[in-house]
Amino acid sequence: MGIFTGHGPLDQSEQDNFGVDWVVHYSFEEVELSEAIQEFRTLIQDLEEAHLQVQVRHGHGPSLLVCIRVPPDLLGNLVYKSRVKDWLHGIIHELPQGDDYAIVEAETPAEALRSVYHAVSWQKSLGGAGITPTLGQWKNVTAAIPLHDRSANAELLRKWSKTIFLTTEDLDAIRALFGEKVAFYFAFIHCYSCFLIFPAAWGIFCWFYMGPYSVTCGLVTCLWAIVFVEYWKTRETDLSLRWNVKDVGFLKVNRPQWVWDKEIFNPSTGETTHVFSVHRQFARQLLLIPFATVATLALGSLIILTFALEIVVSEVYNGPMKAYLEFLPTILFSLSLPTINNTLTEFAKRLTDYENYRTQDQYDLAQTSKTFVMNFITSFLPTLLTAFVYVPFGAKIVPYLDTLREHGLLSANLAREINIDTSRLQQEVIYLSATAQILNFGEEIVLPYVKQTLLHKWRDYREGRDSTRLRSYSQRTDQLLVDAPEESSFLSRVRDELEADEYNVHDDTLEMCVQFGFLVLFGVSWPLVSLGFLANNWLELRGDFFKLSLECQRPPPIRADSIGPSLQGLEILSWLGTLSTAAIVYLYHDGMEEVHMSSLLLSLLLAEWAYVSVRYIVRSGLEKISFVSLRREAAKRYAMRKRYLEATSGRVSPRGKPRVRFQDRVSVFSSATDVGSTGKDEFLHPGYEGTGRRGFWSQETADAGVRLIKALNNNMDGSRTGPVKGGKGA
Amino acid sequence: MGIFTGHGPLDQSEQDNFGVDWVVHYSFEEVELSEAIQEFRTLIQDLEEAHLQVQVRHGHGPSLLVCIRVPPDLLGNLVYKSRVKDWLHGIIHELPQGDDYAIVEAETPAEALRSVYHAVSWQKSLGGAGITPTLGQWKNVTAAIPLHDRSANAELLRKWSKTIFLTTEDLDAIRALFGEKVAFYFAFIHCYSCFLIFPAAWGIFCWFYMGPYSVTCGLVTCLWAIVFVEYWKTRETDLSLRWNVKDVGFLKVNRPQWVWDKEIFNPSTGETTHVFSVHRQFARQLLLIPFATVATLALGSLIILTFALEIVVSEVYNGPMKAYLEFLPTILFSLSLPTINNTLTEFAKRLTDYENYRTQDQYDLAQTSKTFVMNFITSFLPTLLTAFVYVPFGAKIVPYLDTLREHGLLSANLAREINIDTSRLQQEVIYLSATAQILNFGEEIVLPYVKQTLLHKWRDYREGRDSTRLRSYSQRTDQLLVDAPEESSFLSRVRDELEADEYNVHDDTLEMCVQFGFLVLFGVSWPLVSLGFLANNWLELRGDFFKLSLECQRPPPIRADSIGPSLQGLEILSWLGTLSTAAIVYLYHDGMEEVHMSSLLLSLLLAEWAYVSVRYIVRSGLEKISFVSLRREAAKRYAMRKRYLEATSGRVSPRGKPRVRFQDRVSVFSSATDVGSTGKDEFLHPGYEGTGRRGFWSQETADAGVRLIKALNNNMDGSRTGPVKGGKGA
Repeated sequence: MGIFTGHGPLDQSEQDNFGVDWVVHYSFEEVELSEAIQEFRTLIQDLEEAHLQVQVRHGHGPSLLVCIRVPPDLLGNLVYKSRVKDWLHGIIHELPQGDDYAIVEAETPAEALRSVYHAVSWQKSLGGAGITPTLGQWKNVTAAIPLHDRSANAELLRKWSKTIFLTTEDLDAIRALFGEKVAFYFAFIHCYSCFLIFPAAWGIFCWFYMGPYSVTCGLVTCLWAIVFVEYWKTRETDLSLRWNVKDVGFLKVNRPQWVWDKEIFNPSTGETTHVFSVHRQFARQLLLIPFATVATLALGSLIILTFALEIVVSEVYNGPMKAYLEFLPTILFSLSLPTINNTLTEFAKRLTDYENYRTQDQYDLAQTSKTFVMNFITSFLPTLLTAFVYVPFGAKIVPYLDTLREHGLLSANLAREINIDTSRLQQEVIYLSATAQILNFGEEIVLPYVKQTLLHKWRDYREGRDSTRLRSYSQRTDQLLVDAPEESSFLSRVRDELEADEYNVHDDTLEMCVQFGFLVLFGVSWPLVSLGFLANNWLELRGDFFKLSLECQRPPPIRADSIGPSLQGLEILSWLGTLSTAAIVYLYHDGMEEVHMSSLLLSLLLAEWAYVSVRYIVRSGLEKISFVSLRREAAKRYAMRKRYLEATSGRVSPRGKPRVRFQDRVSVFSSATDVGSTGKDEFLHPGYEGTGRRGFWSQETADAGVRLIKALNNNMDGSRTGPVKGGKGA
Repeated sequence: MGIFTGHGPLDQSEQDNFGVDWVVHYSFEEVELSEAIQEFRTLIQDLEEAHLQVQVRHGHGPSLLVCIRVPPDLLGNLVYKSRVKDWLHGIIHELPQGDDYAIVEAETPAEALRSVYHAVSWQKSLGGAGITPTLGQWKNVTAAIPLHDRSANAELLRKWSKTIFLTTEDLDAIRALFGEKVAFYFAFIHCYSCFLIFPAAWGIFCWFYMGPYSVTCGLVTCLWAIVFVEYWKTRETDLSLRWNVKDVGFLKVNRPQWVWDKEIFNPSTGETTHVFSVHRQFARQLLLIPFATVATLALGSLIILTFALEIVVSEVYNGPMKAYLEFLPTILFSLSLPTINNTLTEFAKRLTDYENYRTQDQYDLAQTSKTFVMNFITSFLPTLLTAFVYVPFGAKIVPYLDTLREHGLLSANLAREINIDTSRLQQEVIYLSATAQILNFGEEIVLPYVKQTLLHKWRDYREGRDSTRLRSYSQRTDQLLVDAPEESSFLSRVRDELEADEYNVHDDTLEMCVQFGFLVLFGVSWPLVSLGFLANNWLELRGDFFKLSLECQRPPPIRADSIGPSLQGLEILSWLGTLSTAAIVYLYHDGMEEVHMSSLLLSLLLAEWAYVSVRYIVRSGLEKISFVSLRREAAKRYAMRKRYLEATSGRVSPRGKPRVRFQDRVSVFSSATDVGSTGKDEFLHPGYEGTGRRGFWSQETADAGVRLIKALNNNMDGSRTGPVKGGKGA
């Protein structure tokens, strides 16, 4: 197959996938038979009208697999047209050569698949088949996905299991397989993990020589965080230039769910664009305020309640079953958190839907911002409470609990001294950095895999039983439902992939942001925290790729020029981290002794200023690096345009004027400068006759000047011929 | 004349200026006669080799005026080539139509003059005459400038004297006359003045109802400052798009003073570029640290000394002539400041020279940053000392002065109570905002004008006397030195313009920045301050244009896409202003009573956080506006490219392939999908024979799918024909 040529190891994929570019999963579980037949016929018709080849096979249960293949010449032309579109929007700077029927080869499988994606999903007016899974007319189409390139995935995973660092070529390979959006996530986690090496090493040093809450350690962590965030920005620019996706956001098509309320005709392009009123959108966005308030209150009060209960139980209560009751609040919290989180996320999603964003990027941005805030609260609020409320003010809070005891609510037969545990913060940080990361990994990657495997086993068993039972029913039907032997393993793979989860790259990015936030906010209380994160991330990167390639559907290869809204999150975290680190170091450094409010505030203020200045310096420094790659890009573009100019310089002069070399023309002027007028001169100096002004330009120059020099010289001092004045030059 | 056509009122300029595009002033005061003649001949030869027409006249004293005119066809071609260069560098997005000899009309006089500027000043290798005034070979060329367009200038000034607001067309007119760099300054001062209307009105309200040091007033001022700075950024983007100068910095040529130390050959462009090592430049830039230290110490100690002396005299000293002595420190300070400032500026200039920047823009940036710091110290340090040292801590400082008194150094016969004047800050602010602005205006614009006028009168008198005395000496020489009657007034104007000062747009911008800084730092102590500034700026804008057009040389029309480094200055000032306002309001609001360090720090910290959050919100909001104009620009570019594509779509297919419509081709596929293989199909589906995979694509689809639906339906539940499962759809 010609589609994926140019990428040696990827050629295999076409063979493995029977030349199937895309698979649509049509489920008629909830539809009447006649309606299902009608809908299916429309589906096939729409796909064939878009000039796509289709094949149908049966899926799991009452569903069909529609395998789609784009004829190679059509694909080549789609890729060409997509490039022309990129050029029109200024994403690429060289107009691809060719006419309307040109056929070009895709540079990467992802580029080819993007064109297939557009052919399948874009509206008919844009030349696609208009298949939008789960939406509107196609609500029974549960999925429309490309198939994984198993051998390429496996090869990458095998390679990375043996190495520590990914190369830029590895990132290119991810980009070639899954598109830029996914590749940016892997570039980010890799860049972040590499950066972690420094605080990990430094943390070991601190651990041995300085202990926790050291000023130097805090300073270094904050500085590191600033450098990392600013460096990542330059890296992002670099990669977006390398992958030709800079400013790709401009080009995104409308989401199918998007509703417009105004039509604008652009006279300069002759095209009509639809818009949704900015004011209405802004008014809808204002709903974020009540939402954020409710979310914060719900999560915040839940956390505070858990926290208070835990304190009461562990510090004050002394009744029966204390050892078990101590865990109760945390268990209750952990159990209710997913429900609350899901409710809030669902609500956030509806809000984002209602806000009606035009492109998927804007939608993702709005949704991710909301998730970010919720994650921030659930991830950091407990530790923040420990660090800045419980430990410093615990001794002041606990006496109030005595009132409870006096009222007989708590066992009063203990007169023990209440002792607030200042090491609690450290314990919490250790727990979260070491244990939680591992549990998290298991929950995210191992558990789904086990579940999936078991599910498959069970279904295979059940289907085997079903087919045995039904074999007697109808020989004809049954044969239809038995896969051809050469297709059998391929089709079972297709069915598995269609049932897999969607890969959400934002969630993975967010997880890394939370980790980064944890490190900069609380890392100073346990210097080894980054070492733990470093080890975790080595696994996490590979685990995420494993998840992406084996547990999830292959995502459509969407383009992006950054990790999206998470970048702002990183900036905010590095800022909050500086403040938090300063406060923790001040409060805990000398074990809570001699704490003055004004000194605390002063250290916060100084930390804030230091943050602003350091970030400014680091940014200016790193912008120079960015500038170099922007300049290189500009030089490349310049070279391209220059080549174009040279190639077209042989073109016919547009006004059909004979070519006169300037040298020759100018000689007309220089001979015309000294005397009177010639016909030519009059032509070239219109408007100068009659007014006497032509006289101005009619003298010879060099000799006139020399005469003037001499005259002025004489004028200055009688008869001297030496230096004109003072003779300094002599 | 054809050069400036298309701009009705500007046509006049060519007539007024005898068609002179550029004037070079060659002074041979310090050179031997023979050497002067030799140098002059080289000058004329270089100019003529660059195909420029020249005429020579005598100047004031031992100097010559070389009037330069670019032949219209050459000029048209230079403009064309400059546009092609812009296109090559991505400044404009449409390749100008035409061949190497194309002639286009300049859009504005500034565009034409820029090409003239390049023709005169660029190195010979770039096609210019290489005339670099005051540098190297041409150190006796004191100036090379274009001539003012008096009538256009006068018309603009007349128009503005009658109006309050400038329109964007007025800014376009400035751009057309003086280029973008100057136009950006006027756009800035106008935008700033318009923004001042709000705090001026609000200030009047505050003055009547709230008095100074009001919290509300402070909040509003800070908010206003943030909005203004962020708005100006969007305005800058807007104008740079309107004027087609976005990212024009990439294109700037090397400064003639620049030294390179490495040669890099770029294989993709085939061009050799010179660079100066980044490390060496950075090492040189490090010299800034000792410089800044010395400058700060010199200025700071001078200011503190003055301040201390003034306090001693006014508060403690009670001897004879107290009334006069009180002014002595300030007078001494004012007298020594220019000398110190000049020394420091001169030193800063040398440092910047040594730092060896490639382009004039980078050079200006480095120099302006240094000037900015110096200006910051001299402008704000005295008031900062009053606000945050003298008034709050004065009562603690002054007792130390008693020690002096006890030692008999000061008159001891007074036992008066020392009373620190808390209204001193307000007085200083009033003085500076009202008086200083007026004095400043006089010094900057009126004084030079008076001086210039007197100088001209005196010289005219002297020259008249000389020529009477010398008439007898040599009739021939004398006649040479008498201007032709029709040229006389023109030439005397040229001589005046050549002797005028250079216009430095950075100084004017800096002046506005200092004013803005004063407003945000101390405005809260006297709400009427912005009213004063508003009135001042109405005059200042016109005064600056008056200065530019009548007291200064016409600057070469240089392009820029912003007001340059001052923008960063504005950001820093709005940040410092927030902190300063918070501190002033806290300290002065209740007349210095109940001042607690921790509350002061808390208010600073809260102000800081409020600043960061508000700026973030304002920036996000305004970026949307910027985004709209960027999008509009993108749409324009898109339209342009689309037109281009449509225009060239008739081009011959590069591979000479016959055109087959896709519709036809695709039909080949759809007919090939159902049965066996045809020769065509084999060609289009290579690699599918033999392996049995071709079989996958060989079935018809729609009917096969319908059979599958029915089979699956049967498979699910025996003989039902209704809803497939559960019957929900029925």
